[in-house]
Amino acid sequence: MTYAPVADVLAGKYGVNDTVTIKGWVRTRRDSKAGLSFINVHDGSCFDPIQVIALNTLENYDEIIRLTTSCSVSVIGTVKQSEGQGQSIEIDAQSLEVLGWVENPDTYPMAAKRHSIEYLREHAHLRPRTNIIGAVTRVRNCLSQAVHRFFHEQGYFWISTPIITASDTEGAGEMFRVSTLDMMNIPHDEQGNVDYREDFFGKETFLTVSGQLNVETYCTAMSKVYTFGPTFRAENSNTSRHLAEFWMIEPEVAFADLSTVAKLAEDLLKYVFKAVLEERLDDMTFFAQRVNKDVITRLENVVNSEFVRMDYTDAIEILKNSGKAFEFPVEWGVDLSSEHERYLAEEHVGAPIIMQNYPKDIKAFYMRINDDNKTVAAMDILAPGIGEIIGGSQREERLDVFDRRLAEMSLNQEDYSWYRDLRRYGTVPHAGFGLGFERLVAYVTGVQNVRDVIPFPRTPGNAQY
Amino acid sequence: MTYAPVADVLAGKYGVNDTVTIKGWVRTRRDSKAGLSFINVHDGSCFDPIQVIALNTLENYDEIIRLTTSCSVSVIGTVKQSEGQGQSIEIDAQSLEVLGWVENPDTYPMAAKRHSIEYLREHAHLRPRTNIIGAVTRVRNCLSQAVHRFFHEQGYFWISTPIITASDTEGAGEMFRVSTLDMMNIPHDEQGNVDYREDFFGKETFLTVSGQLNVETYCTAMSKVYTFGPTFRAENSNTSRHLAEFWMIEPEVAFADLSTVAKLAEDLLKYVFKAVLEERLDDMTFFAQRVNKDVITRLENVVNSEFVRMDYTDAIEILKNSGKAFEFPVEWGVDLSSEHERYLAEEHVGAPIIMQNYPKDIKAFYMRINDDNKTVAAMDILAPGIGEIIGGSQREERLDVFDRRLAEMSLNQEDYSWYRDLRRYGTVPHAGFGLGFERLVAYVTGVQNVRDVIPFPRTPGNAQY
Repeated sequence: MTYAPVADVLAGKYGVNDTVTIKGWVRTRRDSKAGLSFINVHDGSCFDPIQVIALNTLENYDEIIRLTTSCSVSVIGTVKQSEGQGQSIEIDAQSLEVLGWVENPDTYPMAAKRHSIEYLREHAHLRPRTNIIGAVTRVRNCLSQAVHRFFHEQGYFWISTPIITASDTEGAGEMFRVSTLDMMNIPHDEQGNVDYREDFFGKETFLTVSGQLNVETYCTAMSKVYTFGPTFRAENSNTSRHLAEFWMIEPEVAFADLSTVAKLAEDLLKYVFKAVLEERLDDMTFFAQRVNKDVITRLENVVNSEFVRMDYTDAIEILKNSGKAFEFPVEWGVDLSSEHERYLAEEHVGAPIIMQNYPKDIKAFYMRINDDNKTVAAMDILAPGIGEIIGGSQREERLDVFDRRLAEMSLNQEDYSWYRDLRRYGTVPHAGFGLGFERLVAYVTGVQNVRDVIPFPRTPGNAQY
Repeated sequence: MTYAPVADVLAGKYGVNDTVTIKGWVRTRRDSKAGLSFINVHDGSCFDPIQVIALNTLENYDEIIRLTTSCSVSVIGTVKQSEGQGQSIEIDAQSLEVLGWVENPDTYPMAAKRHSIEYLREHAHLRPRTNIIGAVTRVRNCLSQAVHRFFHEQGYFWISTPIITASDTEGAGEMFRVSTLDMMNIPHDEQGNVDYREDFFGKETFLTVSGQLNVETYCTAMSKVYTFGPTFRAENSNTSRHLAEFWMIEPEVAFADLSTVAKLAEDLLKYVFKAVLEERLDDMTFFAQRVNKDVITRLENVVNSEFVRMDYTDAIEILKNSGKAFEFPVEWGVDLSSEHERYLAEEHVGAPIIMQNYPKDIKAFYMRINDDNKTVAAMDILAPGIGEIIGGSQREERLDVFDRRLAEMSLNQEDYSWYRDLRRYGTVPHAGFGLGFERLVAYVTGVQNVRDVIPFPRTPGNAQY
């Protein structure tokens, strides 16, 4: 049987006095002495539940007055203009069927009261039933849809780069091993090393840390491509900004330099923030009331601001002349730390900064060397209230320069043979960036910990469900 | 500098006599005795390259006549109505800059000639430069965008279920272990077993085989959800239909029975096929000419057909009475094999079949027991020309029935505690299905082997790049 999403009923897509069926879960029930009950029914389609009014003349009213939070119900009723406060439309029940009871409501883990965010995390299978995680889920979905739409409208192709990989060429950190070897009976080769020839893939394999190098192969054939998939870091980081498993968005653009992708990143952020403001104001209003009062205004500020381009070298001067006593001293050549980034974005500029041209010694081997031979065409986008949200670069497309850089960094040409092929055969200037999706969702919603913006977070010691 | 995608120029988005810049890679070059060269330039934005006409009056014409396949170029030129055959629009070059040469054209692996599909697979980093893999990439992107659009328009939320998981509850087959333990120094516990307490997650973890059980937790809170992410099978299957790493689409719908999701699956397939026919007729025409002449007509047939619902029990009768000598004998209770499925879909019905209500003994523990207590509310969609393309079921939402089934199958209640919670607290009828994305792309394009429809295929012994 078809039924109406609560979002559609509340949005006025059905006429007053129409009969509709809604299905969902009870949020709260309140009985009136006048012989009727007010039941808030939620189905996840929008932030608000809808109020159902059930009279004691309904044949199963004895059941209705036993309804508790999370009981599932199917209601046939009449759409009414509400006279109560806080909602515009309500439903007069013609019938209410209980689909599922809650076993022992007194011990139900998601009873209708305030729970700490840490408590919710320990009940990750039930937490989508709460206001906050429901709102995060809708905003997360809105952002992901907007990301795909943004790239699709501009002629980018989504590329699924491999999750399991045999190369640690990115060198971005510790990796998870993927194996089917019998751990109680590891095979060894003649030299006494683990014999990965007997493993599933015939060699040692890992979970990917980034799809960038892989997606460059498609960029240098299809021009405009992007990835949107899971990536992994086996880092023992127990912070509010780190996950062992997280989703990444990585566009890669041929015939592009650093300023082209800096503009692309700015356009992308503005596009997806606008989508959230237009499509999910219900959830954003909740976040502004309960989580961080600035979440809406800071998105609006980003949408309406011109991102400020700043050279790393100039930033160092600004920081030195700031008169601030930073915990980490500032000197040309150091990596900027969070306190520096926040000072620049929040106090000095008051708008997102596209920081460009970092010292080559603190950046990855694939970034393009600038003419000064000291810096690379790399950028980070620093946003007020969160710090670094995007990191990107122009890639070194000149084979001779690339080979010199590999040698300088004591990296092996043979390990990069397929990557070098892209420079040997019709090389083109190209550039791209990476955007950590959970950090984006955390920034948009104001939720402090990335563990609360992904359904089942993976962190050191945690892989439940 | 901005430039025009070849797709836009060929689609007539620029006026005749407009000056445009295009950037791309040379496909072919032909020199005329009249002192000019015809250069086909491709940029991946559509199937066709654009023809550039370069006169020998260009100052670097000596370079131009040395251009070979895959050299990268930037062309400024005038849009012209073409008088040649096969293209409507061409470009008269005002200038042509060579961005990147091809090192040793004679040994360039993707030289302009026919390569076998197996040869291309061995050069997976260069194969997107070919007609066939370029076309697959655009169609794959079109399908994935259409999948997200379909669900988003209908109010579904995309849920990213975990890739790394500690539970093998689906029991769908062999899994890959994920670990950071030192393979040369495996820790053991008091009993002499591997001590996974010392592993990254504090327990043994694997790559997911399906997001279904996880996404049910969101379905029973948000009503309409879907996953679209990578899944893994450590099966030693070297067939044209198996990958160790593949992408899956898994919608899960609350307040739904089997027929609701059967209809959803039918609508989804029709929607995405229509998108391909509307948006990628250029690539589909290529597949029809070079790969399988039926690819367009069979998509049109699916779009225009009414899927036929058929009970497993009736199918067995039809197969028994078919007079066909099948390799695998048919008896109520057996799993249908490919020859049976193809006979039914291709010969008996001639349209996609939604096969329903399979014997419970050949299906998974979570499928809903029908009133006959012999069958479950499961379905497979069988398409002419490929066989099974979707598998789904209504889930057992009745706690007592579910517990009896676990006991019957000697499964442990404690292993399913969080899954059982969904049945203890406001349980609702719900159903869903899984669609293997690579099999879908293979079906749409007519490409025989799923290894050729994913950028970097992972199969036993293969994890290159």
